[in-house]
Amino acid sequence: MKYLRFQKDGENHFGVLEDQKITKLNGDFLEGAEKSSNTYAFDEVTVLPPVEPSQVVCIGLNYASHAEETGKPLPEEPMMWMVSPSAVISEGEEIVLPNLDHRIDYEAEIAIVIGKKAKNVSEEDALSYVFGYTIGNDVSDRHLQKKDGQFTRAKSFATFKPLGPVIETEMDPNHADIKLTLNGEVRQQSNTSDLIHNIEKLLVKVTEVMTLKPGDVILTGTPAGVGALSPGDQVEIEIEGIGKLTNRVKQ
Amino acid sequence: MKYLRFQKDGENHFGVLEDQKITKLNGDFLEGAEKSSNTYAFDEVTVLPPVEPSQVVCIGLNYASHAEETGKPLPEEPMMWMVSPSAVISEGEEIVLPNLDHRIDYEAEIAIVIGKKAKNVSEEDALSYVFGYTIGNDVSDRHLQKKDGQFTRAKSFATFKPLGPVIETEMDPNHADIKLTLNGEVRQQSNTSDLIHNIEKLLVKVTEVMTLKPGDVILTGTPAGVGALSPGDQVEIEIEGIGKLTNRVKQ
Repeated sequence: MKYLRFQKDGENHFGVLEDQKITKLNGDFLEGAEKSSNTYAFDEVTVLPPVEPSQVVCIGLNYASHAEETGKPLPEEPMMWMVSPSAVISEGEEIVLPNLDHRIDYEAEIAIVIGKKAKNVSEEDALSYVFGYTIGNDVSDRHLQKKDGQFTRAKSFATFKPLGPVIETEMDPNHADIKLTLNGEVRQQSNTSDLIHNIEKLLVKVTEVMTLKPGDVILTGTPAGVGALSPGDQVEIEIEGIGKLTNRVKQ
Repeated sequence: MKYLRFQKDGENHFGVLEDQKITKLNGDFLEGAEKSSNTYAFDEVTVLPPVEPSQVVCIGLNYASHAEETGKPLPEEPMMWMVSPSAVISEGEEIVLPNLDHRIDYEAEIAIVIGKKAKNVSEEDALSYVFGYTIGNDVSDRHLQKKDGQFTRAKSFATFKPLGPVIETEMDPNHADIKLTLNGEVRQQSNTSDLIHNIEKLLVKVTEVMTLKPGDVILTGTPAGVGALSPGDQVEIEIEGIGKLTNRVKQ
């Protein structure tokens, strides 16, 4: 199933997307809401970020191809940091570049959405803690990333974490094509089977440290082909089984 | 005023500490609650962390003396990262060392507690976004900190962020003595006037990036004298005007 959040007539709702039609839910899908009788066309509503995470954990250098292009050695264990949930925007919202002197890059990623409280999960049980998967763009200020060493600031600016448009609950997250186009030109193209640390392993390693809550998000790393954004650009990320996340860029 | 959260007969409450007596509040102090007629002695209640932050931002190398002992250059701008709020514990709770093969250090810090939604605050207005100040221990796994490069994992394990016991709302945060003793022996001793980036500057730089919410916490960095914890240790941090935060260490 494809779940989403949307706004209609100034009110926020939870919904399900089937055959290009959105059916409104009576409550939050993370809590197991039922369908209502209200349906809308996709273009009748404003899509919201599919979750409001309390925590956003990012994973670095998790595709060998990207580690190679950065010149960094492969991390033996998943490399993790956190970004502010205040950076999250939805499908269709604009990515704002706060500083045109800095190189600011797109990064296509599959994002894990947590379904239930998770601490010290085992590899066998890991997927039972997942609600579903969405598309993420881990927008990154390369200048600050290098200057700071720590990545939180470079990746936490407002609008730097587009997520959505939907959360797919029935897919194999470890075998999905992932592709990013910039102004229609393919820039990143891979498959999540190339993840060094797969979805289960990431859940094990993150929850060894911290407790994740329903709606929390893990961004799992980006493949090769990262590059700079400029005002006016349109960036589109497609993940097999989920859909497309499209955002324009402005100053 | 000194605000705190506590548990009594299995229920959580907000309170005010005056003359060693706790007066229960009718609601959350972050929302401006009034005093009730119920009072308790400090030892009649279980103290809780004074806030349940949605975001915990940490600042690194913010005392010249500590930057010197680590051999790192002074950062030109505040160096920031985030840790999981699931690491927060209260006065009196035990710090658990997850791996005895790793060196795990204490770090005494003054912690800013945000009072109202803050984004792009100016230096002049910065303190008006603060609810008050508490004591923090930024417990850090040095092995993982070095291995990962990113500090989130090394500093986010459960129990690694003791906070409390109270939030002081009427103090000068830029001129307060700060002292840490390990088993009664002084290990860190400084004054927040030695902060390289003072409280106002930190609020400016963090909110340039992200939106902070009431109850969010900024840990402002630690002075020289960091050192390892072992099971059985008692670590006590005292900040002038706030009080003392005491935690024992176990395996």
